[in-house]
Amino acid sequence: MNYRSIANILGWIVGIEGLIMVLPLLCAVVYREPTGVGFVVSIALCAVCWLGLTRIKKKHDRFYAREGYVTVALAWILMSLIGAVPFTICGEIPNYLDAVFEIVSGFTTTGASILPEVESLSHCMLFWRSFSHWFGGMGVLVFVLAILPLAGGGSSFALMQAESPGPSVSKLVPHLKATARHLYGIYAGMTLAEMVLLALGGMPLFHAICLSFGTAGTGGFGVLNDSCGSYSPYLQVVLTIFMVLFGVNFEFFFLCVLRRFRDALRMEEVRWYFIIFGGATLFIAVDLALRQGMNFFYGLQQSAFQVASVMTTTGFSTCDFDLWPHFSKMVMLICMFIGACAGSTGGGMKVSRVLIYAKAGIREARTLIRPRKVSTVKLDGVSVDSSVLRGAMMFLACYVGIYAVSLLVLSLDCESFETCFTAVAATFNNIGPGFAGVGPMCNFGFFSPLSKLVLTFDMLAGRLEIFPMLLLLIPSTWRR
Amino acid sequence: MNYRSIANILGWIVGIEGLIMVLPLLCAVVYREPTGVGFVVSIALCAVCWLGLTRIKKKHDRFYAREGYVTVALAWILMSLIGAVPFTICGEIPNYLDAVFEIVSGFTTTGASILPEVESLSHCMLFWRSFSHWFGGMGVLVFVLAILPLAGGGSSFALMQAESPGPSVSKLVPHLKATARHLYGIYAGMTLAEMVLLALGGMPLFHAICLSFGTAGTGGFGVLNDSCGSYSPYLQVVLTIFMVLFGVNFEFFFLCVLRRFRDALRMEEVRWYFIIFGGATLFIAVDLALRQGMNFFYGLQQSAFQVASVMTTTGFSTCDFDLWPHFSKMVMLICMFIGACAGSTGGGMKVSRVLIYAKAGIREARTLIRPRKVSTVKLDGVSVDSSVLRGAMMFLACYVGIYAVSLLVLSLDCESFETCFTAVAATFNNIGPGFAGVGPMCNFGFFSPLSKLVLTFDMLAGRLEIFPMLLLLIPSTWRR
Repeated sequence: MNYRSIANILGWIVGIEGLIMVLPLLCAVVYREPTGVGFVVSIALCAVCWLGLTRIKKKHDRFYAREGYVTVALAWILMSLIGAVPFTICGEIPNYLDAVFEIVSGFTTTGASILPEVESLSHCMLFWRSFSHWFGGMGVLVFVLAILPLAGGGSSFALMQAESPGPSVSKLVPHLKATARHLYGIYAGMTLAEMVLLALGGMPLFHAICLSFGTAGTGGFGVLNDSCGSYSPYLQVVLTIFMVLFGVNFEFFFLCVLRRFRDALRMEEVRWYFIIFGGATLFIAVDLALRQGMNFFYGLQQSAFQVASVMTTTGFSTCDFDLWPHFSKMVMLICMFIGACAGSTGGGMKVSRVLIYAKAGIREARTLIRPRKVSTVKLDGVSVDSSVLRGAMMFLACYVGIYAVSLLVLSLDCESFETCFTAVAATFNNIGPGFAGVGPMCNFGFFSPLSKLVLTFDMLAGRLEIFPMLLLLIPSTWRR
Repeated sequence: MNYRSIANILGWIVGIEGLIMVLPLLCAVVYREPTGVGFVVSIALCAVCWLGLTRIKKKHDRFYAREGYVTVALAWILMSLIGAVPFTICGEIPNYLDAVFEIVSGFTTTGASILPEVESLSHCMLFWRSFSHWFGGMGVLVFVLAILPLAGGGSSFALMQAESPGPSVSKLVPHLKATARHLYGIYAGMTLAEMVLLALGGMPLFHAICLSFGTAGTGGFGVLNDSCGSYSPYLQVVLTIFMVLFGVNFEFFFLCVLRRFRDALRMEEVRWYFIIFGGATLFIAVDLALRQGMNFFYGLQQSAFQVASVMTTTGFSTCDFDLWPHFSKMVMLICMFIGACAGSTGGGMKVSRVLIYAKAGIREARTLIRPRKVSTVKLDGVSVDSSVLRGAMMFLACYVGIYAVSLLVLSLDCESFETCFTAVAATFNNIGPGFAGVGPMCNFGFFSPLSKLVLTFDMLAGRLEIFPMLLLLIPSTWRR
């Protein structure tokens, strides 16, 4: 294991975290909030770590997949440990473990909070919470790749592979640095567009900024206690549209920018993403109309917002969907697991993985029928590589395993099956709210420290797609 | 598709069903019950079908895997449709769909009932319910193979492969017919031993016979309303031991019979089966002692019975485990999914599959660490064949998919998440009782016809391990 290179990269990550903390500090200055002192301390801490870690001399440049996974996992943990400091120093989240939960929920774009209400937080803290979504959404190491001349020797691809969501990594352009820049360009542009549209609709500028960060990263931290319930229908529709857009594979936008619309529309994953979104919205609207007598068009708007929110794993809400009929809740739950597209900022299993499972299932059945006929699993008309297929299958097996262990630990201090089950679903898929005790009007504060630790692990494992976190726990990772 | 051969085999299966229905008819004669007339009608029906179907002339002997799967699926459906007739004719279960649910629950060794109480049923019906467990437990086609000179051309292996539980089929001896006979020999011997031990413990003979059938098939239909709660501790311990034994891979017993004890003890699946059983029992006993102040040793006995019951997917109960603390219930739930050993009469995912998932997960992690090192998944010291591995993975994907669809349909008429979730778990894993609305003291009668249909499908899909039932639904099965 190339510990020196890893320490080096961690140093740069922490340095960049210190840099971005200047933004909430500025926010504190604008609003003249004394709580901003927390950021001064944290920035100093970052500077010290940066100086210390980047001074370590590398012995060689060998940097393989193993180092990539370990670096990504450690980077996210370190970043969270430091990112939680401001909350505790300024006393707005006095318990450090709670603060870590909150900021991990931010960086992993989960949006699950341990706070019973958020309106009493200072502006700079609200800004930091929301900005952590934006920063974590596209990937921290992707950001670093975009701006820094990192070590050579294959480290860049190893890092990107370990951090990018989805069954396989697609490079938009041959050079990784250019890919990273293109991604961040599209990301920033769309975020800006949303801010403008929200502000034009009469949303206070601070809200517009924070909510745009939350939407772009598919995070879900809001600035009001009722999340998005009190915004006007126009604003809710804008939010819905942008939630859906940020759940789309960014390759789609990249192709659109290049005017290769036909290629863009041919992306199977994106087509199915919209089909599932549309189907779920319609099912729920009909269910709400039939069982709760809700006006169909109002129901459609509510349903579209909520489905977009859980399917893209954002986690905003405009109503307490925990009070919906059971069928609607079950549709929501299934959307929670499917999640958004690979290569987006969303979480969950990803539509492309679900497609791979479905197609592989049909292929298996066909093989049973005609054992001698060779058939492959195709996505976008191209055969899925066997290692990708195996990876997707192993993802499912590990997913189920981690889910079971998490449920077991949570059941030690949670007496409702629905709360337990959806708390894990909401954190592991990086959504935020679940049902019952962790519904959209509730919070995660009541869990024991052990459960919070497990849920924090789940959020990180969900965001990094299990393997980087799993490797940390396996002894053979650390052997020579 | 060789329809003529399929029809032929179906004819023989129905014929044998008619034969075994003589047993409950005899029971009716002994107890002088007029309800026995239902069996006379059903036997006549079987005879007509047998005569009709076995007269169809085969054109050729080509019989491949595809035919095997389709035959097994159709055989189980046809058998259930006829097996339900006595209940409806004699009026003890007037609704035919309910009767089908009940007998599918019997044949698939699930043990889920739509009856609010069973003590008012006539003896012959109780006998038929319990005997259906015994008959379905080891496999109906395995039974047919053991006694009939079936068509050649590879049909026997195709049938056995399609019906046997577990990731791969192991032939105990080179000849299939001999394998089938050995299996049934062990099965019948152990059932008889249990009957004797129960009768010696003072259990009424009729109870001893029915409960032994229920244990042997890991079914779970009892003859008392409180399942096994009112039996003496001795009887409960005997039942516990036999439930555990019938969940063991029968290859283990076969090796023991041959005095190859060392080979038997080397079976990894069996070792892990006992480790999981012991661990779960202990965890629950401690939890009960700590949280409900139960005497540890009494708790251990209760816990062992209940864990044996759900892990082997039998479904007997001596107490209302739905009232246990949440952690204990979660341990039970996980045992429900793991299930028994492959090659036993139990259901669930099977210990060997869970082992394959765990080992494949670790292998995947190792491959990420050292991409160039080739490593394989080993079970019992032998590399697992890649097609078995792929099959196990596809089983998981299809399992999750069918689970999600079932949940969705059930949520249309079930307002409790826990009830919904465990109703599917209890039927798909062929256990019987779940938690909450389908707990050990409740029944499945309140579900809508649609939900009952879905649960019936789940029971069959669970028993036949998904693919035979799935193939029936895929158009390409039926294409030339």
